[in-house]
Amino acid sequence: VTPPTPSGEGIKGQRTRNTIVAHAMEVASIEGLEGLSIGGLATDLEMSKSGLFAHFGSKTDLQMATVTAATAVFVEKVIVPASAEPEGLTRLLGLCLGYLDYSQRRVFPGGCFLFSTTAEMRGRTGPVRDEATDQMNSWLRLLGRNVKVAQSQRELATTVDARGLTFELNAYMTTANWLSVALDDPDAYTSARCAIQRLLAGAGAQPAALRRLEQ
Amino acid sequence: VTPPTPSGEGIKGQRTRNTIVAHAMEVASIEGLEGLSIGGLATDLEMSKSGLFAHFGSKTDLQMATVTAATAVFVEKVIVPASAEPEGLTRLLGLCLGYLDYSQRRVFPGGCFLFSTTAEMRGRTGPVRDEATDQMNSWLRLLGRNVKVAQSQRELATTVDARGLTFELNAYMTTANWLSVALDDPDAYTSARCAIQRLLAGAGAQPAALRRLEQ
Repeated sequence: VTPPTPSGEGIKGQRTRNTIVAHAMEVASIEGLEGLSIGGLATDLEMSKSGLFAHFGSKTDLQMATVTAATAVFVEKVIVPASAEPEGLTRLLGLCLGYLDYSQRRVFPGGCFLFSTTAEMRGRTGPVRDEATDQMNSWLRLLGRNVKVAQSQRELATTVDARGLTFELNAYMTTANWLSVALDDPDAYTSARCAIQRLLAGAGAQPAALRRLEQ
Repeated sequence: VTPPTPSGEGIKGQRTRNTIVAHAMEVASIEGLEGLSIGGLATDLEMSKSGLFAHFGSKTDLQMATVTAATAVFVEKVIVPASAEPEGLTRLLGLCLGYLDYSQRRVFPGGCFLFSTTAEMRGRTGPVRDEATDQMNSWLRLLGRNVKVAQSQRELATTVDARGLTFELNAYMTTANWLSVALDDPDAYTSARCAIQRLLAGAGAQPAALRRLEQ
């Protein structure tokens, strides 16, 4: 017996929606979320505008679905792999290396999607901006939590300011992303890995634990 | 005798052009350079579209004039004041504090103009992107040169990697800008000043020389 499945139309509708969102992520990664238009996507995908409207009733709905899907990609590529590592310094390094790899490999053609989106939405209000900033803040909290666990496990010195250390780690990662995608700096990721190594060594991490940063 | 002046129309034309560019900087600071349109500016400024076209023949011309004007503001607000300070560590601190102040006081409503513009232009090609990235690279070289002078004057340890230190300083500054304008982080500038202080103290700067960072 075959298991019950959703109706053919439901599956087809979901597939079409996924195709639209996948293309929207590619476009928005370079052009920004404001560069998305239902008409433009319909042309690219050789669909009717009304067909696309059936899936996304408004530009805001389309932008929101795009941010949600891009966040899911980030979680899959960066957070899930690192979550398999022990909490604390090991997972912190996994998150940092995962982020740099995700940016460098251009999972999105314009680099880190949430970085670009939050930068683009500066000074605006609305649900799309709120969603992007919430996801970015969630990522920063995740880094901060692992800094604190590393301290509680004596992998990093407890005298170090955890919030400051988190600011610095995040600064190196997002700046590497920006220097690479915006200024074509060929050394950006190496600079970030070296900076993370210096920072964590200065915060008391054992050299052996940091060897992963040397590639 | 009065000195020869440009014709009245020349002066008036220049004034109108300045008014247009000043408004274009405000709009682009939030909406991005792609958010500029000759029609939109004409409406905002209650001018005719053809009148605006007389000053800027194309969108690229308008965008280029906007980047040039924004760079001039940056030079005036950040680079000129620091250039009055002695080269080396003192000027380096002047540049860093000047940048943070320029971002925090929202000289542009969307924070650092060149940061936003280079981020927006990621993955594109063309003269506007080239101009913005050249100006940003010029700023990074200026920081790097003062790091090296500080080392040659023994204000910073000569064993420190100057390129790495420059990467880190820039990372703290642009990340403070981004955290503040994009994520509304109220502590962004304080975090950056603390990080700069830790970094330069670790690189051998005298504590007294860094007191300016404590505000």
